[in-house]
Amino acid sequence: MAVYTEVSDEELDAFMATYDLGQVLSLKGIAEGVENTNYLLHAEKGYFILTLYEKRVREDELPFFVGLMEHLSAHGLTCPQPVRNRAGQALGQLSGRPAALVTFLEGMSIRRPEARHCGMVGQALAGLHQAGSDYPMQRQNNLSVEGWAQLVERAHQRADEVMPGLADEMSAEIAFLRAHWPKNLPSGIIHADLFPDNVFFLSGQLSGLIDFYFACTDSLAYDLAICINAWCFEGDTSFNVTKGMAMLEGYQKVRPLTPAEIEAFPILARGAAFRFMLTRLVDWQNMQVGALVKPKNPMEYYKKLRFHRQAQSVRDYGLHS
Amino acid sequence: MAVYTEVSDEELDAFMATYDLGQVLSLKGIAEGVENTNYLLHAEKGYFILTLYEKRVREDELPFFVGLMEHLSAHGLTCPQPVRNRAGQALGQLSGRPAALVTFLEGMSIRRPEARHCGMVGQALAGLHQAGSDYPMQRQNNLSVEGWAQLVERAHQRADEVMPGLADEMSAEIAFLRAHWPKNLPSGIIHADLFPDNVFFLSGQLSGLIDFYFACTDSLAYDLAICINAWCFEGDTSFNVTKGMAMLEGYQKVRPLTPAEIEAFPILARGAAFRFMLTRLVDWQNMQVGALVKPKNPMEYYKKLRFHRQAQSVRDYGLHS
Repeated sequence: MAVYTEVSDEELDAFMATYDLGQVLSLKGIAEGVENTNYLLHAEKGYFILTLYEKRVREDELPFFVGLMEHLSAHGLTCPQPVRNRAGQALGQLSGRPAALVTFLEGMSIRRPEARHCGMVGQALAGLHQAGSDYPMQRQNNLSVEGWAQLVERAHQRADEVMPGLADEMSAEIAFLRAHWPKNLPSGIIHADLFPDNVFFLSGQLSGLIDFYFACTDSLAYDLAICINAWCFEGDTSFNVTKGMAMLEGYQKVRPLTPAEIEAFPILARGAAFRFMLTRLVDWQNMQVGALVKPKNPMEYYKKLRFHRQAQSVRDYGLHS
Repeated sequence: MAVYTEVSDEELDAFMATYDLGQVLSLKGIAEGVENTNYLLHAEKGYFILTLYEKRVREDELPFFVGLMEHLSAHGLTCPQPVRNRAGQALGQLSGRPAALVTFLEGMSIRRPEARHCGMVGQALAGLHQAGSDYPMQRQNNLSVEGWAQLVERAHQRADEVMPGLADEMSAEIAFLRAHWPKNLPSGIIHADLFPDNVFFLSGQLSGLIDFYFACTDSLAYDLAICINAWCFEGDTSFNVTKGMAMLEGYQKVRPLTPAEIEAFPILARGAAFRFMLTRLVDWQNMQVGALVKPKNPMEYYKKLRFHRQAQSVRDYGLHS
């Protein structure tokens, strides 16, 4: 939610001269994306998002992300489509940063999703999984069980400052998840961060998905478990089974879950809640006074984690099995 | 350079329902303007800037600013044009803030102005002064001599931390300016903050002026003196007489300066440098660690002030008198 890198006229002119988009008519830094600098660029050929990749994104992983957006667009998913320059490259350099231009997607994210939105998100997620099924590149999910174990270590010492007993509970949780985390589920490209901020709607219909910078190769059903966490709880952190049912039904309209995925669902949802609790906890502990981006409260996901621990089966999420 | 106020779907829908601009297609928070929250809004009828006025802007002054933009657009100046809602109002309420929609202006500000840009800015400034000549509202300049005296008092105690001797020098300067500040020069609407950030260019031509939230009623030549300070010095704070000449000539093509204005010019330029040195000094002294907006260095304007003190006549600024 910040412009970390400013772009001079000369640098922009030199960058845009490598594209075939006509004259630049305006450039506005936009408050979107926590990791990177984003500009909305209006050129004669249309509106585009110009992204400058900042240090937290590994440069050697950019071809995976940019290639994925290109692949998904080509397979019918509405997502930002990278624009290639005259040399056929989708990645360039601008102001000392790797940079890319992608098409601008109309639509607005919604702050208070209803069950019908959850249904559309489930369906779009399954569409993403299908469109990604023949994407040739792979990227390991560094925020899966072993990544969580590292975050538990980092956050352990000061975890009780957030809630007494949290450090011990985290140790028990990571031990449980390590012992029971499902293996050999259907795997492929997952979005891994499909929160309401990253889904656009227009005229009541889902109009596109954005922000693929956590995408990786992992269990498809784990991606759905992340969405259940992100979309189907109310403001008071109670689970809304109507929303869960809508999302699971929407997903299965396109890609029915396998029996193994259905059986594993409660633990996948539990792991997903733990993952967001951990990253938020680490951000919370490392918060700078007056920082540009205010960290989110980790306790929201602690409460969701408690719900998942009590879940007996996928029926608790609204699935008629 | 921040989004201070978030807007929910419901609030935006209710606000937009009062306008006749069609469905909202997208809304992006933009990193523009230090005082207010700005969004780029795409509606079926076009692109607009949606501004939410934050606390530092006095609500009772908003009709002056919004009315001025409307007046200037109607008189041929290219600047954001307020859009009136169905009730004929250009000011509404959104998310608990006064809010306005203005037309989106294409173009880009330039970071390294050349003499030809300075010429166009001079000409546009004179055009603004002419277009504003029959604007019926007035607003006192609270950042003129008496306002500076208050800033000197505020900044005095810790001024020597920035540069030893600065406190005494400020006291002497305000005494000098109080004694010699010209009165009875031609007066009218001035922009009062026409820095490169607030001027757009397109295809090498000046395409518009923005940010009228310092506009007020004051000496017209003082506005030109502000522009000379903002546009005609090099990065090493040396004065570029070619740029000064271009700006003064550009201005006089549209509105020739009177003999009294020409005579007063060096002291107007001196006062303008002192004004920006003072506000930057106060911002610098009140800087918060990790603040959203990094204050600008006050010493840049101290160095400009020194230049103006040595100026003998308007010839030092490039004017052939």
